[in-house]
Amino acid sequence: MRIDGMSYRSVWIDNDEPDIVKIIDQASLPFSFNICNLRSVEDVYDAIADMKVRGAPAIGVAGAFGMYLATLEITVRTNIREHLHNAARYLSSCRPTAINLSLAVTKVLNSIFSEDLSRKEDISRKALLVAQEISDNEINNCKEIGRYGLEIIRKISLQKNGGSVNILTHCNAGWLACVDLGTVTAPVYMARDKGIPVHVWVDETRPRNQGARLTCFELANEEIPHTLITDNAGGYLMQKGMVDIVLTGTDRITRSGDCANKTGTYLKALAASDNNIPFYVAAPSTSFDLNISNGIDSIPIEERDAEEVTEIEGIAGGRVIRVRICPENTKASNYGFDITPARLIKGLITEKGIINANESDIVNLFN
Amino acid sequence: MRIDGMSYRSVWIDNDEPDIVKIIDQASLPFSFNICNLRSVEDVYDAIADMKVRGAPAIGVAGAFGMYLATLEITVRTNIREHLHNAARYLSSCRPTAINLSLAVTKVLNSIFSEDLSRKEDISRKALLVAQEISDNEINNCKEIGRYGLEIIRKISLQKNGGSVNILTHCNAGWLACVDLGTVTAPVYMARDKGIPVHVWVDETRPRNQGARLTCFELANEEIPHTLITDNAGGYLMQKGMVDIVLTGTDRITRSGDCANKTGTYLKALAASDNNIPFYVAAPSTSFDLNISNGIDSIPIEERDAEEVTEIEGIAGGRVIRVRICPENTKASNYGFDITPARLIKGLITEKGIINANESDIVNLFN
Repeated sequence: MRIDGMSYRSVWIDNDEPDIVKIIDQASLPFSFNICNLRSVEDVYDAIADMKVRGAPAIGVAGAFGMYLATLEITVRTNIREHLHNAARYLSSCRPTAINLSLAVTKVLNSIFSEDLSRKEDISRKALLVAQEISDNEINNCKEIGRYGLEIIRKISLQKNGGSVNILTHCNAGWLACVDLGTVTAPVYMARDKGIPVHVWVDETRPRNQGARLTCFELANEEIPHTLITDNAGGYLMQKGMVDIVLTGTDRITRSGDCANKTGTYLKALAASDNNIPFYVAAPSTSFDLNISNGIDSIPIEERDAEEVTEIEGIAGGRVIRVRICPENTKASNYGFDITPARLIKGLITEKGIINANESDIVNLFN
Repeated sequence: MRIDGMSYRSVWIDNDEPDIVKIIDQASLPFSFNICNLRSVEDVYDAIADMKVRGAPAIGVAGAFGMYLATLEITVRTNIREHLHNAARYLSSCRPTAINLSLAVTKVLNSIFSEDLSRKEDISRKALLVAQEISDNEINNCKEIGRYGLEIIRKISLQKNGGSVNILTHCNAGWLACVDLGTVTAPVYMARDKGIPVHVWVDETRPRNQGARLTCFELANEEIPHTLITDNAGGYLMQKGMVDIVLTGTDRITRSGDCANKTGTYLKALAASDNNIPFYVAAPSTSFDLNISNGIDSIPIEERDAEEVTEIEGIAGGRVIRVRICPENTKASNYGFDITPARLIKGLITEKGIINANESDIVNLFN
């Protein structure tokens, strides 16, 4: 997608620097645009932990590339199996909620050992190939999700006699989160391309403000009409008929259709349900976890630093500054995600089609 | 209540400066503590508009004192009736959602004309007397609300075998909002005084962060255990059984029991309902509006400046700073309130007792 007219992915490897994983530093957007060079497994771990690369599909791809970097660290004295398993465990432990990360890391690991490779060059070549495949797949997933999601938006616009479709979204499931295109944003961009008028209500998404910082940034670059709102505001907009559809991403979908997503998503799903507004989750099949069923009991929810709550980063006078928003020494709690139960979800928009959020549809999707 | 051990009301008149209405500047808390001197109707209007004085009961009291200031402006050439009606209209128009403001202003106005007073001194004396009565009444209301609310907290603690009661609140319905004591906080302080362990989850309450700034400030001064959370977090806490009761204030209650309150309250009420957690609204009878029924259709919702969304004020390096949290030129929307439908409310805690949020109980309360 575009930044100031230039095309980017959010995670990639340049051909002329094959030992470096590059990412757009999402933690510094929109106040400055920086590209980070990741040269080691530790670099990848830190970039994910610090949310320089974030978004379930994107951290999966970063993790896969991290496994490739792990293969570059192999020396003649390395116990390869132990080394790569350690790297996989280390990378997977970085953020617990999104299933994409451990799935992608495991995929690279298994692909290496399934072929019984032993030469470092072969192992690295294989790891890179699989990581690139995972990356290309995620982009292709977004494309297909876009095609299916477009039809939902088109239908709503037709019901409104061609009127503008008001989409509310939470957090950022845009191209930054998905390497390119985005799960939530692909349908939006395709609607725009088809001449269907759209307008996006962007939840600011405290504590890290991925909506205010990243989604607004993406939509502005693509010239999609959008309005920033506080996380508190969506309920009133729905009460007043100002939202036609709620569309979010997810970090993990259980076998029964429960979805973990950025904290606050559940509250929007409740409001959508209470106002008969369709709530859709857009997600690739790499976000499903068929091993668990009840999301509230089983999905691990990351608890992050309290300072993300007590302090907010912004820009003033051209300088990026963190300000404290509460009395000194105020204690804060910071769970990063919540669970939207399947019963509140109208449909899951996947790259293989739109399905209901229930076990039979989900199991079917993988057969 | 106490600030650094000293006792204050949030709105008052000192005996030795009878021509000045004093307020604690709530817009500068907790970063600095300032007392503002309001010397004219315009000063009162501006203080309410800028949220230096805020909270439904407190702006009612400030409006009443504003009417007293209006009487001080009477000269021999003043058309008294026109002057005071204009002042009442002007003050009432300042913030539309809380009913307390227009109710208090009208009460002072009517008390003057009901006695057919004509001497400036008599009019002023009457206005001051009624304004003081309104203020004392609101404090007494909090006391009674505290007594009734205490019993709810006590019951929950007993059900938990004396365990700590986790109360989630949104915005600030504390003593700053109510001149003294507070509607939501009075039961909390009384529980503390009775040795019932309590812990308060404080929603930060974007866009103006009254939770993070004011409620945390109040609770810290009173040494009540509390934890700041983002507005997004309450749903997950409820899903995980970490909230025993949700308790908020309100700006207006309709005849049918719908409650307008700070934007985001509705989302917490939905989550409470979805998790079988009691959601109570604490409010004096001065917050009821028997003239309207359907809150969503009939309660005027204030739309405030978009900059309250795009910018956040905080403190850094000892300086109070406003930072922009989104790309430059991002459009934002800022409705200040939402409506919690009566069906989501377990009970209304008033100074006359706890009632159900329905028309018969409400009408009964006023008979």
